[in-house]
Amino acid sequence: MSTIIKKMKAEHVKRPLICAPLVGKTFEAIKEELFVITKKQPGLIEWRVDFFEEIDKTESVIETGKWIKENARGIPVLFTRRSNREGGQPITLSEEEVTKLYVSVLEADIIDAVDVELSCPKEAKETILSLAKDKEIQTVMSFHDFSKTPKKEELLDVLKQAQEEGGDVGKIALMPKSLRDVLLVAEVTEEANRGLTIPIITMSMGPKGALSRLVGGAFGSAVSFAVGQTASAPGQIQIDQLEKVLDVIDASQE
Amino acid sequence: MSTIIKKMKAEHVKRPLICAPLVGKTFEAIKEELFVITKKQPGLIEWRVDFFEEIDKTESVIETGKWIKENARGIPVLFTRRSNREGGQPITLSEEEVTKLYVSVLEADIIDAVDVELSCPKEAKETILSLAKDKEIQTVMSFHDFSKTPKKEELLDVLKQAQEEGGDVGKIALMPKSLRDVLLVAEVTEEANRGLTIPIITMSMGPKGALSRLVGGAFGSAVSFAVGQTASAPGQIQIDQLEKVLDVIDASQE
Repeated sequence: MSTIIKKMKAEHVKRPLICAPLVGKTFEAIKEELFVITKKQPGLIEWRVDFFEEIDKTESVIETGKWIKENARGIPVLFTRRSNREGGQPITLSEEEVTKLYVSVLEADIIDAVDVELSCPKEAKETILSLAKDKEIQTVMSFHDFSKTPKKEELLDVLKQAQEEGGDVGKIALMPKSLRDVLLVAEVTEEANRGLTIPIITMSMGPKGALSRLVGGAFGSAVSFAVGQTASAPGQIQIDQLEKVLDVIDASQE
Repeated sequence: MSTIIKKMKAEHVKRPLICAPLVGKTFEAIKEELFVITKKQPGLIEWRVDFFEEIDKTESVIETGKWIKENARGIPVLFTRRSNREGGQPITLSEEEVTKLYVSVLEADIIDAVDVELSCPKEAKETILSLAKDKEIQTVMSFHDFSKTPKKEELLDVLKQAQEEGGDVGKIALMPKSLRDVLLVAEVTEEANRGLTIPIITMSMGPKGALSRLVGGAFGSAVSFAVGQTASAPGQIQIDQLEKVLDVIDASQE
């Protein structure tokens, strides 16, 4: 099992892995973007394939994915199709076709981790999780709400579900309506991380939520998404800015 | 009324005032320390007079205070005797003598704000608050617990008490036993700041609490204490480090 995303110990203020999204629309754009991103040395690169215009051409996805892997300078790659209903780009593929694409990409052995939305059809999830397990590819079971922050119990349930369904990592990304929602997510993170065996990734989005990207690691979020070249979600901070803050937090723990 | 410490608007991520403690034991040490601190341009300087060896010589306190005021390059000065029971240095003065010292300092017109512990005898508090009001010196009514973080309701009550007793600012500084305690204080800050008319200052101390010094402003804490030359409480961060983090938070709000 490739454990790129590791569990944060409870009660230890630790540095989260920084993940930079790759959102180029074309192979050419991706090439340029990857060059910029790798120079900033994130711990993980998330290829948001829903941004890729040739997502309907499996061959093209595989070739591009292979190129990314070969040129990522050793940085692990997380493969993600974010669905339109969870904040991703609109695509022409049906859900069945997306599952087929995932299977092809997993079989091609060109990625290190894969994002699977908890809201996917059960069968698709099982197919992908089983294949990923065979291939020793880490699975991130995710849930996104771009309009609000659900209640605490609901969020704890979602993260528990990620573990119960066999995911290697659980992820929730929520939109806060107030700073109270940001605190709620920190609370959920602390509690879920304490109770679950898998690592979790949590964040509040938008300007208010930006705080969660800075201090989320302290509460047990294993990954913080930050901008290499272009943001993939609202509130993401530039990698170098995030690094600066994490350095200060690290120093404050000595 | 000199309102150096201003109320943070609820739901606005705003930059807190940075306050640097001045903890020199002698006039010579204070001179050197003030020179270092003023170069870092904090928004406020807290003279912790309980560190001053000649605290029992009123004349010497007044002269030193006057010198500080004249050499603070326009930075307002908060005058504080932290009692031993609330984490301050042991001193030889009786509580009555401390009150007399406060009265002399207030009458000398050499400070901009004054810290008064909520746990002080009622009469002493009334004397100091009344005189401070006459002199248009802002009063910070404070509560410190270096061993634990009391319950939410208790902390909300303390801040409410600060307002009800006529303080211009309410301050609580607590020691967290866990990151949950740090979240609790953020929650209290958000709620109290929403409910009260006076500005409040809150912080969790120690390494875990250092996070509160970074993001406390976002939740409504009007001041963050940071190190100019020497820390006065555990977990304080260097001014330049705090400034860096506040810059990133500011940028994330645009």
